[in-house]
Amino acid sequence: MSRLGVCFVGAGGAVASTVIAGITLMKKGLAPRIGMVTETDLRQTLSCAPLDSMVFGGWDLRDENIYEAAIRERIVPENLLKKVEPELRAIKPWPGVVSPRFLGSREGTNVVTANSHREELEILSRNVKDFKATNKLDRVIIVNLASTERHAQVSDVHRTVAAFEAGLQKNDERISPAMKYLYLACKLGAPHVNFTPSLSKIPALEALAESSGIPIAGEDGKTGQTLLKTALAPAFQVRQLRVDGWFSTNILGNNDGKVLDDPESNKTKVASKLSVLDEILGYEVPDHQVHINYYRPRGDEKEAWDNIDVSGFLGERMQIKINFLCKDSILAAPLVIDLVRLIDVAHRCGERGIQRQLSLFFKAPYHREGERAVNDLFKQNALLQEWVEKVARRLRAAV
Amino acid sequence: MSRLGVCFVGAGGAVASTVIAGITLMKKGLAPRIGMVTETDLRQTLSCAPLDSMVFGGWDLRDENIYEAAIRERIVPENLLKKVEPELRAIKPWPGVVSPRFLGSREGTNVVTANSHREELEILSRNVKDFKATNKLDRVIIVNLASTERHAQVSDVHRTVAAFEAGLQKNDERISPAMKYLYLACKLGAPHVNFTPSLSKIPALEALAESSGIPIAGEDGKTGQTLLKTALAPAFQVRQLRVDGWFSTNILGNNDGKVLDDPESNKTKVASKLSVLDEILGYEVPDHQVHINYYRPRGDEKEAWDNIDVSGFLGERMQIKINFLCKDSILAAPLVIDLVRLIDVAHRCGERGIQRQLSLFFKAPYHREGERAVNDLFKQNALLQEWVEKVARRLRAAV
Amino acid sequence: MSRLGVCFVGAGGAVASTVIAGITLMKKGLAPRIGMVTETDLRQTLSCAPLDSMVFGGWDLRDENIYEAAIRERIVPENLLKKVEPELRAIKPWPGVVSPRFLGSREGTNVVTANSHREELEILSRNVKDFKATNKLDRVIIVNLASTERHAQVSDVHRTVAAFEAGLQKNDERISPAMKYLYLACKLGAPHVNFTPSLSKIPALEALAESSGIPIAGEDGKTGQTLLKTALAPAFQVRQLRVDGWFSTNILGNNDGKVLDDPESNKTKVASKLSVLDEILGYEVPDHQVHINYYRPRGDEKEAWDNIDVSGFLGERMQIKINFLCKDSILAAPLVIDLVRLIDVAHRCGERGIQRQLSLFFKAPYHREGERAVNDLFKQNALLQEWVEKVARRLRAAV
Amino acid sequence: MSRLGVCFVGAGGAVASTVIAGITLMKKGLAPRIGMVTETDLRQTLSCAPLDSMVFGGWDLRDENIYEAAIRERIVPENLLKKVEPELRAIKPWPGVVSPRFLGSREGTNVVTANSHREELEILSRNVKDFKATNKLDRVIIVNLASTERHAQVSDVHRTVAAFEAGLQKNDERISPAMKYLYLACKLGAPHVNFTPSLSKIPALEALAESSGIPIAGEDGKTGQTLLKTALAPAFQVRQLRVDGWFSTNILGNNDGKVLDDPESNKTKVASKLSVLDEILGYEVPDHQVHINYYRPRGDEKEAWDNIDVSGFLGERMQIKINFLCKDSILAAPLVIDLVRLIDVAHRCGERGIQRQLSLFFKAPYHREGERAVNDLFKQNALLQEWVEKVARRLRAAV
Repeated sequence: MSRLGVCFVGAGGAVASTVIAGITLMKKGLAPRIGMVTETDLRQTLSCAPLDSMVFGGWDLRDENIYEAAIRERIVPENLLKKVEPELRAIKPWPGVVSPRFLGSREGTNVVTANSHREELEILSRNVKDFKATNKLDRVIIVNLASTERHAQVSDVHRTVAAFEAGLQKNDERISPAMKYLYLACKLGAPHVNFTPSLSKIPALEALAESSGIPIAGEDGKTGQTLLKTALAPAFQVRQLRVDGWFSTNILGNNDGKVLDDPESNKTKVASKLSVLDEILGYEVPDHQVHINYYRPRGDEKEAWDNIDVSGFLGERMQIKINFLCKDSILAAPLVIDLVRLIDVAHRCGERGIQRQLSLFFKAPYHREGERAVNDLFKQNALLQEWVEKVARRLRAAV
Repeated sequence: MSRLGVCFVGAGGAVASTVIAGITLMKKGLAPRIGMVTETDLRQTLSCAPLDSMVFGGWDLRDENIYEAAIRERIVPENLLKKVEPELRAIKPWPGVVSPRFLGSREGTNVVTANSHREELEILSRNVKDFKATNKLDRVIIVNLASTERHAQVSDVHRTVAAFEAGLQKNDERISPAMKYLYLACKLGAPHVNFTPSLSKIPALEALAESSGIPIAGEDGKTGQTLLKTALAPAFQVRQLRVDGWFSTNILGNNDGKVLDDPESNKTKVASKLSVLDEILGYEVPDHQVHINYYRPRGDEKEAWDNIDVSGFLGERMQIKINFLCKDSILAAPLVIDLVRLIDVAHRCGERGIQRQLSLFFKAPYHREGERAVNDLFKQNALLQEWVEKVARRLRAAV
Repeated sequence: MSRLGVCFVGAGGAVASTVIAGITLMKKGLAPRIGMVTETDLRQTLSCAPLDSMVFGGWDLRDENIYEAAIRERIVPENLLKKVEPELRAIKPWPGVVSPRFLGSREGTNVVTANSHREELEILSRNVKDFKATNKLDRVIIVNLASTERHAQVSDVHRTVAAFEAGLQKNDERISPAMKYLYLACKLGAPHVNFTPSLSKIPALEALAESSGIPIAGEDGKTGQTLLKTALAPAFQVRQLRVDGWFSTNILGNNDGKVLDDPESNKTKVASKLSVLDEILGYEVPDHQVHINYYRPRGDEKEAWDNIDVSGFLGERMQIKINFLCKDSILAAPLVIDLVRLIDVAHRCGERGIQRQLSLFFKAPYHREGERAVNDLFKQNALLQEWVEKVARRLRAAV
Repeated sequence: MSRLGVCFVGAGGAVASTVIAGITLMKKGLAPRIGMVTETDLRQTLSCAPLDSMVFGGWDLRDENIYEAAIRERIVPENLLKKVEPELRAIKPWPGVVSPRFLGSREGTNVVTANSHREELEILSRNVKDFKATNKLDRVIIVNLASTERHAQVSDVHRTVAAFEAGLQKNDERISPAMKYLYLACKLGAPHVNFTPSLSKIPALEALAESSGIPIAGEDGKTGQTLLKTALAPAFQVRQLRVDGWFSTNILGNNDGKVLDDPESNKTKVASKLSVLDEILGYEVPDHQVHINYYRPRGDEKEAWDNIDVSGFLGERMQIKINFLCKDSILAAPLVIDLVRLIDVAHRCGERGIQRQLSLFFKAPYHREGERAVNDLFKQNALLQEWVEKVARRLRAAV
C-alpha cells in the first residue's frame, strides 16, 4: 500500500485536530466511517487512498501536540480522545511562519526563526522532506486550515512568477503566509487545498501550479450557512420566487470567531460568504448581508440565523427564517478528508492547476479566467459526478 | 388566437379566485407577470397559450361569484380587486357535486340536484359544453382545486373501467366527487390536473385517461413546507448528513385549514406530505412527522415550523429549524397557471396519460407502475427541462 | 441535625434520578449548589433542611437501582455519575402500585403484589415506616414524580372522605395510584407534593389533608414553555397588547414523551398547560393551543416552539416566536428540591392543607375553593416572598 | 374642557405621524381606542386629558405636512389615512434646528435660519407661543421623537446651568439640538419627554427642570426587543437560571434604521439597549451583545432575533431563541400618548424634575443621583401603580 502524507497549515486548530483524531479513531475501528463522500461507492470507483495509508503532520503557531489541541478545542468527546491519546500525542506541529500584517492576533509562539522569506521557505521545505523520509511516504498533500488572514488585494508582486520570486527575494511584506505555503507546495510538487478564505491563489501561483503540474483547489470550505444558502437559492430560482433580501448572521465562540473579531479578517470571510447568491439567481440581490459575531457561549457550535425575504405571484411578499445549530469543525472535517483524497486522485491522473470539479466543497470555488464560478450546490455536485465518471472510465480503461 | 377554457373544481376557493383575479389583472396590465415558469423564456419555446386566450369557469359549493369569493378570502388586496370587479362578478360557479362520505364539513348549498351518479355527470358535462359554446372555446382543461376529501382506499370498484362504470350505474358511494370530475375529463377529452391530495387517479381512470388520449397530472400542489423539504433533503444527501428526524408543523387559518381539522381529511393531506423524504434520501427517516393545525389568526398566511435533526462526522448531531411565513394561495396560484399551460402543450403534442415531467409541481407526483416517484426538486426540474427540449425540437421540426 | 426523608413516587424516573444524583454530588462537593431558590439567602432565612440531612427513597415500576436509572436516562453526564455510583446503586426503589385504567403503557414489572386497595396501602405504608426506621429519619415527605396518568374526572367516590374510604374498601377502580399515594401521605402525616398533572387533590383528600394536619402542594411542575408563557403574558397585559392566539408545540423523546403519546394522558397534560393564560390576561384567548409530540431524537432535551399573535395600537397585528431548547429534568430537579424544603418548613410551622404560596412552582397551582389560581409568575413570586417574610418574622420571634 | 397642546420634535417622523393620525382617527370614531394604558380605568382615576382636548404641532426637518409624512412612512393603512386627510394636511411642521456634529445624515431642508444658538431658541419659542395662542391652548408638552443623535459625552459645558447658558452664548457646538429643545421646555414651563436615546438630561438641564418646576421623563422608548428582555430577565432571576450570554440582533428598514447605520448614532442606541440586563439580574452578563442593522426589505416592521444562553441545575446549559416580528411605530405610538397624559397629570399635581414612576416606558429610565435605574418591567409597573394610587388619593381628597 502506497502511503499518503497530509501536511496541515494550522495542524493544531479545531478542524485539523478533529480530522486527525477522527481518522485515527476510524483506523482503530472506534468510530464509524460516516459523513464523507469518499466513504461511499466513490471510494472504490476512484481507488481513493485508504484511510490506513494516511499519515498526518503540519505546522502550528501553538506549542501543543494534537492530543492537547483536541482536548482544548472540546470538539471530539474526551472519552473518545483518550482512546487514541498516544497516537495524537505523537504528532507535534512544526513551527509555522507568521506575518503581523496578515494576522490580527498573535496566536502562539511556535514560530519559525528565520531572517528572510527564502530562509523560512527552506525550513518549511525541510519539514516536509523529513516528514516524507521518516514516514516513508510516497506523496504529500498540503492543506491550509490556518486562521483567516486579513483582507489582501492582488498587486504587482502577485501577478507573475517572476515578480513573486523577486518579492520573495526582497522580503516583500505583501507576500502572506498563505501564499508561502502554496508556493512551497508548487516547489515540492505537492497538491494544495486552501480551505480558508485567505488569499493565496494569486495569478503568479496559479501559473506556477499549472507549470509545476500540481492540482490546486479552494477556497473557503462550505460548511453550514452557505451550504444551506446554495441549496435554497436554486429552489427559489426554480419556483420563480424573487429574493428581495437575505440577512445572515452568525455567532461562534471558537478561535475562528476570535480571529474574525478583527475587522480586516472579518472582511475577508464576509466577502467570501457574500459572493454566492447573485451568481445562482442571475440578478443582484438588493439587500444581501452577512454578519459574523464572536460570542463565547457558543464555542465551536457555530450558529446561524438567516432571514430571507422573497416575493412571488402579484408581488406578494413572504419570509423564511432559518436557524442552523451546527458544529463547525464536525461539518468541516469530512470535507477536508474528501478533498485530500480527491485531489490525490486528480494528481495521480495527471491533472494540474485549478480543479473546478471540487467546487462542491467551497464557498468561493476557484475558477479559471473566463470561466464562471459555480455556486449552486447541485450544479457543483453534477460537476463532481461528471468528473468521477470520466476518471472511472479512464481507470477501467487502464485495467 | 385559439381560445383555452379552464374549469376549476372549487372555482370560488382561495387558490382559484386568486388565479382568476391575478390573470384578469395581468391581462389589463394591472399586475406584473411574475412568479410563473411559463412567463420566462419557456413561454415562447413551448408556444404556451397566451394569458389573453384563457377563459375561466368552474364549479363551487358556495353560492358566490368570484368577486365575492376573492373579497372573502382576503388574499388579493381589495384595492386591486376593485379594478377588475365587473370581470370577476361575471363569473358565477356552477353547482358542484358532493358526497357526505368524502367531505367532513358541508361547505355550501350550491349543489347539483340529481338522483344518480349518471345524472350528476350529465349535468357537469352540460356545464362544460355550454361554457365552451358560449365562450367559443377551442379546448378545455379541468383542474381540481376543491377541498381535501377524506382518506380513501383503492377497492374493486376502482380497479377497472368496467367496474367503475358499473359502480356509477349502481351509485356506488365509494366513487368520490374527485373521481367523477376526472371521469368527466376523460369523457370530454379534456386534460385534467389534480392539485389536491384527494384520491382520483385510481387504476380505472388512469387506464381511461390513457385510452381517451388525455394527459393527466397530479397530485397535491407542492407549495411551501414540502417545497423547502425537497430542496434541503438533497443537500443533506450530497453532504452525507444523515437525517435522524424531521418534525414539521403547520398552522393555517383559511378554509383549507378548517377542512383539514377533520381527522380523515387531515390523514389524506399528511400522507401526501410524508411521502417525499425517504425516496430522496434512500433510507427510511426514523422520526418523520407532519402536523397540520387549524389556527385562525393565521388566515391564508400558512406558516410552517420545521425541526430537522441530522448527524454527521463521528456521529455528532446538529439541528436546523426553519420557519416559513408563506402565503398559501400566492404560492399555489402560479403553479396552477403553469400546469394549465404545460398540460395544454402536452395535449397539443399528443401526449396521453400520466405526465411525469410535471412532477415539479406536486407533493406526490403521479408515476406509472414500475416507475419511481421523483421528489427531489432539482431532479424534478431536470425532468421538466428535458421534456421542454424534446418538445422544442419537435416544434422547430414542425415549422 | 434532624433528618429528612424524601419518598418519590417514580423514584427511578428522569426527574427523581436527577434530583438524587444531583444532591449526592453536591453533598460530596462535586457539583455546585446552584439553580435552587432554597440555596440563596432564603435557606438561612427559613432554616431550610440542609442538603446533608436529606435521605432518598421511593417506589418505581422499573426494576433498577438509581445508578442504572440515571445512566439510562442520560441526563447527568456519565463521568459525574461514576463519582457517586455506590451511593446511587444503594438506592433500590420499592415496588409501586399500578392501574391499567390510569396508565397507558405498562412501564415495568416492579409492582406491588396485593389483592386489594387496602392491602396495597398496607405495603406502601410499611415501605415508608421501614425507610424511616432504617435511616433514623425524623420526618418524611412524599413527592409524586410518576408518569402522567390518563385523564380522570371527579365523581362521587372522590367527594368525601367517607365515600373515598368506602371506595377503597370496594376496590373502586376510579381510585387512581396518584390518589392512593396522597391518601398514604395523609395517613402517615407526611407532607405531599404532586409534581405531575395526574388528578390527586380530589375534594375527599383535600379535606383529609386539612384534618390530618399535612400541607399539600401541586400540581404539575412549571418548567419550560409554561414558565416563559407566564412571564410573557403579564408583559403583554402591562403593555395592553391583546393576545389573539397562542400556538404552543412541544417535542420530546424521553419516557414522559412516550407516556404522553397516549391520547388520554396527553389530554391530562394539555389541560394543565392550557389553564394559565386566560386568568393572567383577564379575557379568553380565542386560539390558545398546546400540542405535545413524542419525537425520539430529542430525548430529555424537550423543545418548545411558540407562536404568539398580538394586536396593538389601531388593531395592528404582530407576531412573536419562541424556541426554547431546554432540558426537562434539569429544569424540574431544582424545583423539586425547593418544594421539598419549603413544604417541610410549612409543616414545621404548623401549616396544613393547600399551600398557595408554592404556586410559583406549578402549572396548575392548587387553590382553595373561592380563591383564584394565580398563574402570573411574578404574582406567584410575590406570594412566596410575602410568606417568607411572615415565616421569618415568626422564626425570629421564636428565638 | 381645557386644551392640551403637544409639540413633537420630529413631528413628521414615523412615530409622531402615527400618533397624530391615530388620535385623529379615534376622535372621529374611526379607530378603536386600544393599546394605551391611559385608555383603561386609569383615565378616569387620574382625570387624564381627553383625547378630544389634544392638539398637535411640532418641528421637522422634512418639508412635508403630516398627511404626506404618514403616506410616506406606510404605517397607518392608506385607506384609513384618507379618512382624515384634511386634518393631517393642516398640520405642517415648523423648521427644526440641526447640528452636523450630532446628526449623521442630513434629513431635510426645513431648517431654522438663524445665526446663533440664542436666535434659534427665540424662533423655537415663538413657534410654541404662536401655537398656543392660535389654538387657545391651556398648556403645552414637548416630546422629542427626532432621529437618534450621535453619541455625546457629558462635559463641562453640560454640568451647570451657568456653564450651559454661557455655552449657548458662545454657540458651543457641544450643545446638541436635543438639549436645546429640553432647555426650551424649561424656559416655557412645559413638561418634556425624551423618547429618543439622544443625550439631553445633562446635569445642567436636570437642575433647570427642577428649578423651573417642570416634570421630565426619558429616555428611549421601550418598545420591542427590550420590552421582552425586561420581562424575561426577571423570570430567569426568579428561577435561578443564570444568563451566560444574550445575543440580540435587530433588522429594520425605516428612516430610524438608516440613521442608525451611522456608527456614532448606532453607538448611542446600542448603549441604551445594553444597559438593562445587569441591573435586573444583579450580576454582569459576560456576553451581552446588541446589534442593529439597516435592512430595507423590513421597512418599519422592525424584527428582532435574540439568542439567550442560560445555565441551571448542575451547570447544565439551555438556549432560548426569540423572534419578534413587530411594528416599531405601532408599539411606540401608544406609549407616547400615555406619556403625554401621565406627565400632564404629574405637572398638574405640581411634580417637578425626574418622573421615575414613568420608568415603565423607557429603555434607560431617568433616575436621580443616588437612585438606581429600575429596568424590571414588573417593578417599573409597580412604581407606576403606586404613584397612581398616591395621585388618586390626592385627587379624591381635593374633591
